[in-house]
Amino acid sequence: MTPDEKIQELNLILPEPIKLPPNLEMQFSWVRVSGNRVFISGHVALNSDGSISEVTGKVGGAVTVEQGYEAARQTGLAILSSLKQELGTLNNITAWLRVFGMVNVEPGFVKTPPVINGFSDLIIDVFGKEIGNHSRSAVGMAELPFGAPVEIEAEVEIST
Amino acid sequence: MTPDEKIQELNLILPEPIKLPPNLEMQFSWVRVSGNRVFISGHVALNSDGSISEVTGKVGGAVTVEQGYEAARQTGLAILSSLKQELGTLNNITAWLRVFGMVNVEPGFVKTPPVINGFSDLIIDVFGKEIGNHSRSAVGMAELPFGAPVEIEAEVEIST
Amino acid sequence: MTPDEKIQELNLILPEPIKLPPNLEMQFSWVRVSGNRVFISGHVALNSDGSISEVTGKVGGAVTVEQGYEAARQTGLAILSSLKQELGTLNNITAWLRVFGMVNVEPGFVKTPPVINGFSDLIIDVFGKEIGNHSRSAVGMAELPFGAPVEIEAEVEIST
Repeated sequence: MTPDEKIQELNLILPEPIKLPPNLEMQFSWVRVSGNRVFISGHVALNSDGSISEVTGKVGGAVTVEQGYEAARQTGLAILSSLKQELGTLNNITAWLRVFGMVNVEPGFVKTPPVINGFSDLIIDVFGKEIGNHSRSAVGMAELPFGAPVEIEAEVEIST
Repeated sequence: MTPDEKIQELNLILPEPIKLPPNLEMQFSWVRVSGNRVFISGHVALNSDGSISEVTGKVGGAVTVEQGYEAARQTGLAILSSLKQELGTLNNITAWLRVFGMVNVEPGFVKTPPVINGFSDLIIDVFGKEIGNHSRSAVGMAELPFGAPVEIEAEVEIST
Repeated sequence: MTPDEKIQELNLILPEPIKLPPNLEMQFSWVRVSGNRVFISGHVALNSDGSISEVTGKVGGAVTVEQGYEAARQTGLAILSSLKQELGTLNNITAWLRVFGMVNVEPGFVKTPPVINGFSDLIIDVFGKEIGNHSRSAVGMAELPFGAPVEIEAEVEIST
């Protein structure tokens, strides 16, 4: 089963393209392709209409570990949406390479790996253990844009 | 117009090579080239003589958003200076790929994207929207070296 | 002298493969190889049996700069161990490219570069100044997994 088919089988909903708040202009791309290299900008969790999720705050504080896991999973869906918009399909992704998982932490909260598992588990579910395998860091940030609990940037490889 | 010409047209001053404080020895390169891949170490804003800028502190606290934007722009000039020293010219850069923008944040300050815009806007001004386009994260750090308000690392591609 | 020989000459002990605490399942690889590109997940310092080092806490607080330097060096040994497990030898590494050094900082602690020097110095000792040369950032994080004082992720290049 291809990743595009797997998205359907798992009933995953990819959100609409990212809708930033008004008055925030940014000159960069959510996905930057060069040859077979695909760089993914830092993404946060989105609602299905592409607006930024209202679940904000610090994991270990206002946001529980379970909510953080879910935010990481939704961040993954936002990234898959951006990839599909840019590439047309997820099926020509040949390898996930690097995942940098950033958790907006309450002071003293160090269980960042189980939070970012929400992202890794999604990627393995959709791409399988060979293509979906990746290197990863899962670390605690002082603050993230919009007060998001999780932000993830990544790099993947495509066939050209 | 080439990037080197654009630097002149915009009257941009690239600072001298980085002068670290005495007694700080570091065994790495500000720019690391391998084939067509160019990795740029974390840079901070410099004075025109290459010394580290005296504008230090946390954005949202001692440093305003406007000063943070300016620090990000000056960090960009420092990076362009390092690239020019290493490559001889900016004209063989074929693509900006990844920009990782780190903001030294006062607790609660989440408007990191407008700060890092100071870098992105400069890169687009000099390289245009096609070559200058990049993936980006703009996130809040607990501390940065020298108390710098902004640090940026990046990767670009060159023709070989 | 090759890197594998240098490890022996310097009497460096590479720790056993990483032993995570029980109940922590993670679906990613410590090293991810694609063609000649090798991505290294965020590593922390290990004991020689592969368990996570008991030296935890914030540099500038419970952990001194000297202990932080040593933690960065031991993080390097953990990374070399992971590379050797994955690649069989360190001798086909042709270039260190990118090092992202994260320091778990006490508020106000900005001397992160001397801490990450513990890693850079090790890499130069083992690989020499040409292959071991790298781009680097050394920045202050709010928290790191397990309360580790240092975490490092990196990318290297191999001959294929």
